[in-house]
Amino acid sequence: MKAFQDYYPDNFSHCYGCGRLNEQGLKIRSYWDGDESVCNFRPQPYQIAIPGYVYGGLIASIIDCHCIGTASAAAYRAEGRELGSEPPLRFLTAALKVDYISPTPLGVILTVRARAKEVKGRKVVVTAELWAAGEVRARGEVVAVRVPEGMMNV
Amino acid sequence: MKAFQDYYPDNFSHCYGCGRLNEQGLKIRSYWDGDESVCNFRPQPYQIAIPGYVYGGLIASIIDCHCIGTASAAAYRAEGRELGSEPPLRFLTAALKVDYISPTPLGVILTVRARAKEVKGRKVVVTAELWAAGEVRARGEVVAVRVPEGMMNV
Repeated sequence: MKAFQDYYPDNFSHCYGCGRLNEQGLKIRSYWDGDESVCNFRPQPYQIAIPGYVYGGLIASIIDCHCIGTASAAAYRAEGRELGSEPPLRFLTAALKVDYISPTPLGVILTVRARAKEVKGRKVVVTAELWAAGEVRARGEVVAVRVPEGMMNV
Repeated sequence: MKAFQDYYPDNFSHCYGCGRLNEQGLKIRSYWDGDESVCNFRPQPYQIAIPGYVYGGLIASIIDCHCIGTASAAAYRAEGRELGSEPPLRFLTAALKVDYISPTPLGVILTVRARAKEVKGRKVVVTAELWAAGEVRARGEVVAVRVPEGMMNV
């Protein structure tokens, strides 16, 4: 099953967080699950804040890339288009907010569920919850803005 | 010259972002510069969003760890104590917010300057600006809360 990120054009597939062409990257992958998008991720043992707990910067990174992928997929849906069809709809992060609710344990799969709460013009607002071991550990919101056509050929 | 993070107790020095004992980590280091704190960081070539531009999750990570270090240093200052004196004043991130102003170029040193705008009880609010090539590229705010004594011995 192809992830949202598998449909990104090659020149947008080098992202450290979610680029399939970034060999050192995190390779975050996102999928639809009804009206929500979902991403599963298992942190490495060294991606910690304090021993036994996941690094907050990693949590912010997963939420960021998953929400940007969700913004793109939601924009295609809003236009009734297939993911990956031309012209590409790619987004950048204008703002990222994360509330850390409780420490996130290491050693389990993290699941981020997100939802596009606003798709309007060039802007998509996405909210997310990060779950681990049956509890919400963080909540996030990303304001995503569409990449200008002039930047699509970098 | 010792950084704020050099004064963290060993059990708080494994952070992927700023722990001196995390061999795979980013080793973010923070210092006072008058009333501001400053952190310089050079991203790796693979820490990109799109070719030529720094990954937003890395920017969030640097702002997070630098602001948490600043919260700790500001709390020591507010109590008129030397950094590293007992009992340790360590902080966790309750909330992180980053506004991305313009793309951050790769290949130059990033400088984050931060300021504790509120030091009150167990909470410190820190604001930050990330500069690259002479321009502000991102603005951040971190709400830091003091680690409960019961968690200091993890």
